[in-house]
Amino acid sequence: MEPSTDTDTSTYAPVDAGWHVAAAHEGLSPELVPIIEGGVTSAAGFTASGVHAGFRRNPSRLDMALVLADEPCTCAGTFTRNPFASAPVQVSRGHAAAGTARAVIVNSGNANAATGREGIEKALHTCDLVADAVGCDPGEVLVSSTGVVGVPLPMGPFERGIPMALERASVPGGTYAASAILTTDTFAKEYAVSYVSEAPGLEGTRVTVGGMTKGSGMIMPNMATMIAVITTDLPLSHEVAQQALSEVVGDTFNRVIIDADTSPNDTCILLASGAAAPTFEVEVGDAAYHEFVVALDDVCRFLARLIAFDGEGSTKLITVTVDGARSDAEADLAARKVASSTLVKTAVFGHDCNWGRIAVALGTSGARFDATDVDIDIMGIPVCRQGMSMAFDEDEALARFEAREVPIWCDLGAGTGSATIWTCDLTYDYVRINGEYRT
Amino acid sequence: MEPSTDTDTSTYAPVDAGWHVAAAHEGLSPELVPIIEGGVTSAAGFTASGVHAGFRRNPSRLDMALVLADEPCTCAGTFTRNPFASAPVQVSRGHAAAGTARAVIVNSGNANAATGREGIEKALHTCDLVADAVGCDPGEVLVSSTGVVGVPLPMGPFERGIPMALERASVPGGTYAASAILTTDTFAKEYAVSYVSEAPGLEGTRVTVGGMTKGSGMIMPNMATMIAVITTDLPLSHEVAQQALSEVVGDTFNRVIIDADTSPNDTCILLASGAAAPTFEVEVGDAAYHEFVVALDDVCRFLARLIAFDGEGSTKLITVTVDGARSDAEADLAARKVASSTLVKTAVFGHDCNWGRIAVALGTSGARFDATDVDIDIMGIPVCRQGMSMAFDEDEALARFEAREVPIWCDLGAGTGSATIWTCDLTYDYVRINGEYRT
Repeated sequence: MEPSTDTDTSTYAPVDAGWHVAAAHEGLSPELVPIIEGGVTSAAGFTASGVHAGFRRNPSRLDMALVLADEPCTCAGTFTRNPFASAPVQVSRGHAAAGTARAVIVNSGNANAATGREGIEKALHTCDLVADAVGCDPGEVLVSSTGVVGVPLPMGPFERGIPMALERASVPGGTYAASAILTTDTFAKEYAVSYVSEAPGLEGTRVTVGGMTKGSGMIMPNMATMIAVITTDLPLSHEVAQQALSEVVGDTFNRVIIDADTSPNDTCILLASGAAAPTFEVEVGDAAYHEFVVALDDVCRFLARLIAFDGEGSTKLITVTVDGARSDAEADLAARKVASSTLVKTAVFGHDCNWGRIAVALGTSGARFDATDVDIDIMGIPVCRQGMSMAFDEDEALARFEAREVPIWCDLGAGTGSATIWTCDLTYDYVRINGEYRT
Repeated sequence: MEPSTDTDTSTYAPVDAGWHVAAAHEGLSPELVPIIEGGVTSAAGFTASGVHAGFRRNPSRLDMALVLADEPCTCAGTFTRNPFASAPVQVSRGHAAAGTARAVIVNSGNANAATGREGIEKALHTCDLVADAVGCDPGEVLVSSTGVVGVPLPMGPFERGIPMALERASVPGGTYAASAILTTDTFAKEYAVSYVSEAPGLEGTRVTVGGMTKGSGMIMPNMATMIAVITTDLPLSHEVAQQALSEVVGDTFNRVIIDADTSPNDTCILLASGAAAPTFEVEVGDAAYHEFVVALDDVCRFLARLIAFDGEGSTKLITVTVDGARSDAEADLAARKVASSTLVKTAVFGHDCNWGRIAVALGTSGARFDATDVDIDIMGIPVCRQGMSMAFDEDEALARFEAREVPIWCDLGAGTGSATIWTCDLTYDYVRINGEYRT
């Protein structure tokens, strides 16, 4: 079934999504084959759809996504650690722990967060509605919401939208699903890769991992992320899927900061259909597991970088790498502080190689180091050595600021700890988006 | 000596400083008598001046301040904890610890930070120049700098400016000194109070405490502050002065956050001339000490609030109070996170009672609480009770947003810990100021 075109035209057609997608490839494993226009339905065993259910007033905006497994499949999830965890997070956390899922339902336009017991009941009822329509157990439905916090969730859109979404679920529908989960994002974020396994017992089998994500503001995931749904056709037990997901999310989605606030709705779900090799068993640490983790890391890294590229109002992706810290944890602390410094972010917006602000953020972070051991490069230009200013070519710096990605590298000279964080610049548009977005 | 008017006209004539000054009075002790237009020279025994020495290109901008004690007097100081502590901080930390000072020299336009050993030598040489001119020991000179980080400090302006500043030092010159230390500030910040002592042995003695400060960006002091010079005519030993200053700074200057970055130049100096009662001895904890701490707290609180009022690009002072935390430390953590949330700050700029963003920041802070115990008021309007949205009158809220100060109050319902942090909103002008300010 193709989605109909009358209501499914997203207003979020990206002007330069191609550019973002090309740039987000940096740092990915060259041996994996990216699937062009792939996403949450690229792995065998999944369909999806995105519809206008009515959570938003604009009838041309998709606002509800359904991802459907052909059969009950393995699931795993990571979720926000904010004590204000939304109702859908509280419900899905339990359902994901049970290990088997048939469907994921996501609405945008209302976060169903800070909505109390009524919110929980509505999230559970949403699972009931999907379960009835699909013909599965309500515990096999994962639910996720994004949008305004503290406003009661309307149930009418689910009642109208779920049958429509089910009818339209298809492989090409993955793209509509990716559009339906967006909020202030400016383009849909999906990606998939495939590889031919060389693992014993799985030799020659083509495995696919793909997914979609959303996120643009209130972004500093903690052991979880924004909303992402990843699928694969590799057979995984719940334990193996959870282990792989937790491992990869820490290095990918959890390394994006837009504005240093952790959303109450952060959710990352992994579904594994096993369709690529129904009888095979993957164990944590075996060859098939390692292959899969590389592919999962690639997909999550790509999607995470897309989120940073699409940070609210951003003009630049900023990649902050801190080396030479006393530990990885201190490197992480320092990189996060630089990545969340409004002074650093406005300097990048102003095309200013202002390493003094980077130094100040490093010093504020709590990481332990001696200022006279610190080296800093901006866009590959050495601007600080041993805590002191280096002369550099200003014209060359301005020319390098034309690139969409601005790498900042700091060496604290205090040890071997290392960390990378992705963020974006702070612009007039960030203030406009968040100053004019009224509750 | 009156300062001449040809070069001393500050471009920083505040349009609405009177409004700020009136508003900054909130929470001060009613028993103290504010000195109208008082400042760093209100206490007996001090003169000051502000001159254009040449650190800045604009000849109409004052850029060097001198505060002079008639005689060597007691001094104390608190300084930045940023590992990138500037050269003048490293020098003044040592001089302040020696306990006696005759002069404080402050330049704006260049921070002499991240300037290595050469920077230290220049800060020491600045003390030599002042000592030679004044006729004191170089160890009795405190030096402070503010402005661009990582650029070599020119010495010519000191050589030209110090004799001029010394010649012009006067009691009315305190106002020029307060103008000369400004950077992106939009008005000079000075204040003084006096009281008649009732302490045994000091009955009937009039004591004055006054000071000046600067600060508008890169503001999150840690056990120190921006640049502030406070004077009093009470006789204090170094130990007593240091104890009182450390006590008060933690509750006043250290509670301001503009952009969550701690400057390498934060400096707060207290000078005590003893001119009010030359033979008296104040001990930590006695009646005279308590009276003084109340007055010092008033002066520092007033000046700290002026800094928040004048945060870069701000339209609102935001006062974040967190009650009901498990400890004061957790309340502080939570209040700082709310006060540094760009989402909260842009919402206030947009006149939006967006308590969801406040809740998210509380949840991101690391403070431990149950979301269903949280109450939030914005401008006195209950917007959240027990973690859930409360209906409120939107017109009333918009009317209250017309005030210059926006109080945010949160009760975590987890204990008795409490903290208040002052900050400001995040506006287009913040991005303009920091995106266009080029190194």
